Amino acid sequence: MVTRREVAVLAGVSEATVSRVFNGLGPMKPETRDRVLQAAKELDYHPNAIAQSFARRRSGNLGVVLPYMPKVHLFSAYYFSEILSGIGEEVKEHGYDMLLTLLSPDEHIDYTHMHRSQKVDACVILGSQDTPEQRESLLQLHEQGFPFCLVNQHFEGMALHEVDADHVHGSLLAVRHLLEEGCRHVAFLNGSPLYSNSKDRHEGYRKAMQEAGLEISPSWLLEGNYSRKSGYEAADKLWELRHEVDAVFAANDRMAIGLIQGLRERGWIAGRDFAVVGCDDSDAAKLSDPPLTSISVPFYEMGRAAARSVLARVTGSEQEDGLVQLKLPTGLMVRQSSRRNS
Amino acid sequence: MVTRREVAVLAGVSEATVSRVFNGLGPMKPETRDRVLQAAKELDYHPNAIAQSFARRRSGNLGVVLPYMPKVHLFSAYYFSEILSGIGEEVKEHGYDMLLTLLSPDEHIDYTHMHRSQKVDACVILGSQDTPEQRESLLQLHEQGFPFCLVNQHFEGMALHEVDADHVHGSLLAVRHLLEEGCRHVAFLNGSPLYSNSKDRHEGYRKAMQEAGLEISPSWLLEGNYSRKSGYEAADKLWELRHEVDAVFAANDRMAIGLIQGLRERGWIAGRDFAVVGCDDSDAAKLSDPPLTSISVPFYEMGRAAARSVLARVTGSEQEDGLVQLKLPTGLMVRQSSRRNS
Repeated sequence: MVTRREVAVLAGVSEATVSRVFNGLGPMKPETRDRVLQAAKELDYHPNAIAQSFARRRSGNLGVVLPYMPKVHLFSAYYFSEILSGIGEEVKEHGYDMLLTLLSPDEHIDYTHMHRSQKVDACVILGSQDTPEQRESLLQLHEQGFPFCLVNQHFEGMALHEVDADHVHGSLLAVRHLLEEGCRHVAFLNGSPLYSNSKDRHEGYRKAMQEAGLEISPSWLLEGNYSRKSGYEAADKLWELRHEVDAVFAANDRMAIGLIQGLRERGWIAGRDFAVVGCDDSDAAKLSDPPLTSISVPFYEMGRAAARSVLARVTGSEQEDGLVQLKLPTGLMVRQSSRRNS
Repeated sequence: MVTRREVAVLAGVSEATVSRVFNGLGPMKPETRDRVLQAAKELDYHPNAIAQSFARRRSGNLGVVLPYMPKVHLFSAYYFSEILSGIGEEVKEHGYDMLLTLLSPDEHIDYTHMHRSQKVDACVILGSQDTPEQRESLLQLHEQGFPFCLVNQHFEGMALHEVDADHVHGSLLAVRHLLEEGCRHVAFLNGSPLYSNSKDRHEGYRKAMQEAGLEISPSWLLEGNYSRKSGYEAADKLWELRHEVDAVFAANDRMAIGLIQGLRERGWIAGRDFAVVGCDDSDAAKLSDPPLTSISVPFYEMGRAAARSVLARVTGSEQEDGLVQLKLPTGLMVRQSSRRNS
């Protein structure tokens, strides 16, 4: 491999000058710069990128933190794949690469590691949970001035950069729609309250029932873990409630689809015997049987917005003092699963 | 931030010794190592990862090259999401991170850049195309001894590490199945011949027709670009052929589904008026209307195998002299779209 020394000799300058040219540091005569670049070209010299990053303190990588679960095909989940597609679009435009770090929920979460490692210039964090440990770690990262942005999660009482969706309003739309369809006894299959979006959906559900003057029976509040399997398992409980419940609002499409499958096995058909609304408006919602009414969430745009905001801070194209807290709109996509003809 | 110097002072050793401890270099008295580690712990010292990589020449990152197309939600494509999920599983087990680089087909492809950049220790390449430029670039990368592995692509006449699927056999199964269903005039909607898997599928299609003693009309050979839209557009041509064609084999599910949609608009219904088989056995195949008969391809396992083989070379847990050329099996998943009752 060609060394910096060889370039320096050919250009008739010092090695330090070669470094300064390749790291864009300090004042420099144009002729000197040209001579170095010409020599580098002739010798096919490529400066070592790690050494270069070391000098510049820029890696050219945007970190993306993803939750890891063994054997789960993470990238195949609509939620993550759409957010990643949005991030990908933005990093490409900035000439950046994406460094993905997979974190198991059971390992010690230390987000400040990303800052110390200097492998990334900024990061976007997906799947963070509201635990004391994660709060502490995010706060440290924030205090260290490291640019990062949360996606689809906010922490009550903490002012962090975040790009979220209006899940409260989306859930309000979902339940209002079910009530307009004539349903009165709406069960709610939620995910873990460690996610702010779960809590937001609960609030929207509660609001919609309240404004209609309807009581919520505690037995109607069910919890899954956002997997299809947990929706399928919730069918047991729904089946027991079949004489008092006429609709279900599920906090994502996968749980809704699992639930529909579990109840179909007992002869209880969505869109005929009871109404169902899911969340995410994923591809599966359009293709499921019956097609699933769902709350649309702009995950792709959320990924883009989060990546754009942190990269703008790194590249200095945006002021650094403003707090980015976006809440993108959600909507209602009506399909057959929310009809009820019984 | 705590410096190496402070650790050296507290431990009573030189700064170079501190470096050697953290980079695992050279012989060292156990007492000295313990003293340095103890001092580092007391001071909460974290060695700079880039500097460390510089010394060790290891980044801890596995590079993944993906093709980029503006606005296409790349990570949401079943094909890529499954391969990435497989790679993710493997990097997690090795304690590695994934560095994703998105390459536009229209930009100058220079794979050797990854080696020079030293940002990754090895890489897995998806979506490479058989062009003279890419052949040249891959050959250079290979000659430089950089560990890399292609997924779902092979280059005739080049001995590179690759993990592929048996697309010839899969296509043979698809067309044989259509013939067993009573079809005789099978059109083939393929993707670009720049991908070896397109060429392999063509070979399987040709073999199956040949062994049944059937002629292939050149007008039955259609080409899309693996998008749903290109399948939808191919419906125009299929509609013109409706009096001579009774089945279509499509080189992926997205094109098959687009084709089915386009023909349905004309009243020609898959699984009733003509038979269709897709490829990939994606989620969409299970959920489409009618459910799509498809060739299953173990993309997740292909991603894992590719990542495992290159990481084994980096970490030295495998001999470096063997050429890895895997061809994983494909299978036939029969659903309603391939029935034909007319």
